[in-house]
Amino acid sequence: MTSVCGKNIIVSIFGQSHSAAIGVTIDGLPAGKKINIDQLKAFLQRRAPGQNAYSTPRQEADIPEFISGLVDGVTCGAPLTAIIRNTDVRSGDYSQFSDVPRPSHVDYAAQQKFGGVQDMAGGGHYSGRLTAPLCIAGSICLQLLQQRGIEIAAHIASIGNIKDKAFNLVNVSLAEFELLKAKSLAVIDDQKAAQMIELILAAKSEGDSVGGVVECAALGIPAGIGEPLFDGLENSIAAIVFGIPAVKGIEFGNGFAAATLKGSENNDSFYFDNTQVKTITNNHGGILGGISSGMPLIFRTAFKPTPSIAKVQQSVSLSQKENTTLEIKGRHDPCIVPRAVACVEAAAAIAIYDALLDTQI
Amino acid sequence: MTSVCGKNIIVSIFGQSHSAAIGVTIDGLPAGKKINIDQLKAFLQRRAPGQNAYSTPRQEADIPEFISGLVDGVTCGAPLTAIIRNTDVRSGDYSQFSDVPRPSHVDYAAQQKFGGVQDMAGGGHYSGRLTAPLCIAGSICLQLLQQRGIEIAAHIASIGNIKDKAFNLVNVSLAEFELLKAKSLAVIDDQKAAQMIELILAAKSEGDSVGGVVECAALGIPAGIGEPLFDGLENSIAAIVFGIPAVKGIEFGNGFAAATLKGSENNDSFYFDNTQVKTITNNHGGILGGISSGMPLIFRTAFKPTPSIAKVQQSVSLSQKENTTLEIKGRHDPCIVPRAVACVEAAAAIAIYDALLDTQI
Amino acid sequence: MTSVCGKNIIVSIFGQSHSAAIGVTIDGLPAGKKINIDQLKAFLQRRAPGQNAYSTPRQEADIPEFISGLVDGVTCGAPLTAIIRNTDVRSGDYSQFSDVPRPSHVDYAAQQKFGGVQDMAGGGHYSGRLTAPLCIAGSICLQLLQQRGIEIAAHIASIGNIKDKAFNLVNVSLAEFELLKAKSLAVIDDQKAAQMIELILAAKSEGDSVGGVVECAALGIPAGIGEPLFDGLENSIAAIVFGIPAVKGIEFGNGFAAATLKGSENNDSFYFDNTQVKTITNNHGGILGGISSGMPLIFRTAFKPTPSIAKVQQSVSLSQKENTTLEIKGRHDPCIVPRAVACVEAAAAIAIYDALLDTQI
Amino acid sequence: MTSVCGKNIIVSIFGQSHSAAIGVTIDGLPAGKKINIDQLKAFLQRRAPGQNAYSTPRQEADIPEFISGLVDGVTCGAPLTAIIRNTDVRSGDYSQFSDVPRPSHVDYAAQQKFGGVQDMAGGGHYSGRLTAPLCIAGSICLQLLQQRGIEIAAHIASIGNIKDKAFNLVNVSLAEFELLKAKSLAVIDDQKAAQMIELILAAKSEGDSVGGVVECAALGIPAGIGEPLFDGLENSIAAIVFGIPAVKGIEFGNGFAAATLKGSENNDSFYFDNTQVKTITNNHGGILGGISSGMPLIFRTAFKPTPSIAKVQQSVSLSQKENTTLEIKGRHDPCIVPRAVACVEAAAAIAIYDALLDTQI
Repeated sequence: MTSVCGKNIIVSIFGQSHSAAIGVTIDGLPAGKKINIDQLKAFLQRRAPGQNAYSTPRQEADIPEFISGLVDGVTCGAPLTAIIRNTDVRSGDYSQFSDVPRPSHVDYAAQQKFGGVQDMAGGGHYSGRLTAPLCIAGSICLQLLQQRGIEIAAHIASIGNIKDKAFNLVNVSLAEFELLKAKSLAVIDDQKAAQMIELILAAKSEGDSVGGVVECAALGIPAGIGEPLFDGLENSIAAIVFGIPAVKGIEFGNGFAAATLKGSENNDSFYFDNTQVKTITNNHGGILGGISSGMPLIFRTAFKPTPSIAKVQQSVSLSQKENTTLEIKGRHDPCIVPRAVACVEAAAAIAIYDALLDTQI
Repeated sequence: MTSVCGKNIIVSIFGQSHSAAIGVTIDGLPAGKKINIDQLKAFLQRRAPGQNAYSTPRQEADIPEFISGLVDGVTCGAPLTAIIRNTDVRSGDYSQFSDVPRPSHVDYAAQQKFGGVQDMAGGGHYSGRLTAPLCIAGSICLQLLQQRGIEIAAHIASIGNIKDKAFNLVNVSLAEFELLKAKSLAVIDDQKAAQMIELILAAKSEGDSVGGVVECAALGIPAGIGEPLFDGLENSIAAIVFGIPAVKGIEFGNGFAAATLKGSENNDSFYFDNTQVKTITNNHGGILGGISSGMPLIFRTAFKPTPSIAKVQQSVSLSQKENTTLEIKGRHDPCIVPRAVACVEAAAAIAIYDALLDTQI
Repeated sequence: MTSVCGKNIIVSIFGQSHSAAIGVTIDGLPAGKKINIDQLKAFLQRRAPGQNAYSTPRQEADIPEFISGLVDGVTCGAPLTAIIRNTDVRSGDYSQFSDVPRPSHVDYAAQQKFGGVQDMAGGGHYSGRLTAPLCIAGSICLQLLQQRGIEIAAHIASIGNIKDKAFNLVNVSLAEFELLKAKSLAVIDDQKAAQMIELILAAKSEGDSVGGVVECAALGIPAGIGEPLFDGLENSIAAIVFGIPAVKGIEFGNGFAAATLKGSENNDSFYFDNTQVKTITNNHGGILGGISSGMPLIFRTAFKPTPSIAKVQQSVSLSQKENTTLEIKGRHDPCIVPRAVACVEAAAAIAIYDALLDTQI
Repeated sequence: MTSVCGKNIIVSIFGQSHSAAIGVTIDGLPAGKKINIDQLKAFLQRRAPGQNAYSTPRQEADIPEFISGLVDGVTCGAPLTAIIRNTDVRSGDYSQFSDVPRPSHVDYAAQQKFGGVQDMAGGGHYSGRLTAPLCIAGSICLQLLQQRGIEIAAHIASIGNIKDKAFNLVNVSLAEFELLKAKSLAVIDDQKAAQMIELILAAKSEGDSVGGVVECAALGIPAGIGEPLFDGLENSIAAIVFGIPAVKGIEFGNGFAAATLKGSENNDSFYFDNTQVKTITNNHGGILGGISSGMPLIFRTAFKPTPSIAKVQQSVSLSQKENTTLEIKGRHDPCIVPRAVACVEAAAAIAIYDALLDTQI
């Protein structure tokens, strides 16, 4: 079991959906760095539940308490730990799932792994709630990246079959980032945003859910970041992104589309933009051989539809050893993607900051 | 820098394309396990170059020498190290690329990272040649998995726009694996295989290259393997697969397609197949919450077209600080995908075996 | 920076002496294990301050709150986190030491490392107070070891030049462990205990302090535990024990005394005790080549005298760049050794339990 | 199993005494560093066997072959691997020990661990021969430290009861290092050296062996190196040093002697030596709270007498389940300490260099 990631910083996430608290420890942060707590809280708000009609009505204040590692808002070189108390907990909702596992949820696999003693209330340690501490760590890493001129932003590339305008692989800009972060739904094209909300609400009203894709970009990463083979930027971003529940795929640059192209179509020619080496296209998504190229880093992450739906579903009773049906009552997001935008940014920030510490630059 | 992966076993890969040798150390293998060297060599042959018209003419005997960890073909509990001598080396081919980086190759990023002292002959440590030691480690892990009833096979899902028949997510079988491994090109549909070869040869004759997708399945993994958050099967498979050169994306189960579906479409209902719990569909690809579900594990990996093409390309002279053109002479695969099939299987075998050692089952 | 230890379990300690709380996360504990919280609290009491005339008067309730990983006192497979609130905090005591470092304390070295932004109030992250979370983790590991028939106990081998009776390397027994744990001062020979207290009180009255040695034994470890070279039992116990403040040495078996002997004197002959292989002597302290031999594991740890003494000392003013004198007021143990006994047991328990999880037995 | 150490550099040692080769991979070395191979070979010579009357007559050319990571003697950023072929191998010497374990040797514990399939020829992976790759890694780290003004040297502090002059904790100098390295036996006092040789030869003629202590010093380490709790310099040096066969203890500064002192005696007062902060005494051995203080780093390591002695010893037959006697024929050092001096320096160099890479300085 390892809810621990990172190499130069070690990010350790703990808690269950319905335990006393959830939290995160970051070991290895440099000392003397100012952390803006208001900015961090604003970041957390972007993944917080209960904010609008298309997310779970579960209410969580989600106020992190920093219990170590910060003195007057400045890192002191000791491990930084923050916890969030769980308050709005209704364990009763979940009692049945240890016997009748929810389709496409972790219930059955966890039952086989832990032999029945796992804490599955609210999804336990596998709950999307654990992305709150991920976002705390991510926001801190993002602030430290910003202090070095690196900025990260993500948007909803698609929900169901409704597609937002994609980031321009070459020209994605900080201005675009600003615009996105000011929106309640991180979608470039407002018309598409409206359609996405409509689609989510329709799924909700049917007791159903819907999936989507998040596209994330990072600007300002100098060329030369990332280690060979198993510690390249793609490896380390992927290793953290798959820690976000419901992620089923990741691609960098033009990703799966590259597989359909010829080398002469996919290759990105170098040129001098004044004194700076750039590429005319950016099909490589800012990463070559695991190392940053200086071009915008771009990747896309696929989220499956929330498995917890209200519709009656077919499952099994493990105790009765027979097929049965299941109706899930609890409170669930009809679409996790809007709240996942911040989580993807957080995962990217942790991986990139960790890689930056590793580099010889 | 870390060319090291794994947690319970530690796989450390070393060597450059044109160094005296390349190799791998696997630390943490259990003692007393029989390794079939002939089977390992046959596995290596599947990724070896120079075997047919559509791969690089570079000839490498690729005979591994086991210098430690094996006594009479049985693991002895000490780290296992194997090396392969580099013999057919022509360093001169590569001298120009430190000044004029090849588009979409690691040259420029590595130059920025290492400040010019990196060994880029033949791609150096970033060469596809380093997948030979990966395959040694993978073949050993695969044999140890087979001793526990787990089998892995991959096929070419597509090259360019030519698509092979996909694995049936639910019914992929060992018999299908056998058939695939007997073929010179790992494609289920022979007609498609012929078209793929045609496409590769066409690209070759144009001095171009072409990309593709490898689909990999694993059978026999018991439910309950894989750790939470950052150490799930998806995370650890992805972290190794992105260590294979040219990989730009990975997806599990129905992957990116899941993002377009509703929960009611994507969810996999449980049922009893006699006494065994299965799912009717397998959109989750055998992994739920990072943990194996007992269903076939399925993932797909996107490979970009080989960046080294014979066509004249646009690049820069770093020393002259001006735009220039580049013509790559060396010996290169017009399509890396056929040889990558074994590499993907190897990566999966390492990740799954490592996870299996971790489990409480 | 890494306040993280372990391999199969990952123990991450956080907090500063005067932060809101201190605590520990243990990742990787098996699920379904009962943890006796009363037993854990009793273990913590053994290192708690303020209990008698020869320890610091600082009062800490030291009641751990388990915020994750335990459900009804049983591990659930998720990371276990416990925190202890810091209550009796007087930061003012420490303000001067960032300019005038205390001799033989971490002040100066930390100042050089962290450039002045470290939190040195109460010793910050370097405080002996951080051994409380170490003891939480240690008590949990010890309970899990006990469930497998392994018991650990330590005693004060010496304080200053007063020496307790040593453990008999061959015949140390559980009965002896019981007796020790029932005592307020973990000393085998009561007369020596009285002399030790006298010595500590004399040092205290002089505004001085005194060092000592803790001897620790573990019974019931089966032969065959411990990995080669850098992951033997000696390596991993040492790596954790040196995490306890004031430790300056460690030796196993007859340790430094072995260096004065001939092989024929130091070698431990094997014999059969009924069907069990034992050694007639146990100069090896239960570890051969890093691996447990089945004999009692024995090691000794040297603690320097508490550097914080009331006597006027010579130091420097870093700001004034001149020599000066220093008088330390705060509250300090005249001898850390009595409270360190539990810490040494905790360190041993963590290392041994981690090694046990690693083994193929 | 982990024959892997380090955090920023990852040192992985492989091979058995009688396998085809032994070797080491160092992952994470910075690129562009010149390695002097002659200097490295000279370093290796200091631990090589067969050089005089008081070491094993086993002859090994011990010529390392660098198979990756170096281009024209300069690190290229890829993992550096060196191997040494095993040539003078006589496996027959060792066949009996799997049944009749040698007292105080790893035989019995390894038999219990590996169930009989371990390769114990020549000590297998536990052989002192594996310190040759340790010395390769150590010499490389030492050269990199020297490039940053840090120098390490060790001497034989004692053999049996014959004690060399100790390093002066405060004034140990580079000049003293030079003198030591020029000697065939690393002993400060030549008269004591002669007595030590006499003692070793006496032990040898009796078919016996003798232990000793190695004292090691490092000069030029800036203040501020070393991480808190489990990653301090003491922890990491100890974790590697215990990887050298026959080590049974380690102490820093005045070590176990500190345990007999009062704080007022043991504390090291700070003062200004011109603009530099120093301590009047150096009982702390250059490490405070795990962090370097800028004073000389000093530690001592206890080696037990070589367990392989020619005298008839008592042991057991594991197959016959009865007591028996054992006479060891092979070729063995009557005292390992002279050859261990370089190994201790190597271990220190690896730990200190790894810590230096970690630091924020």
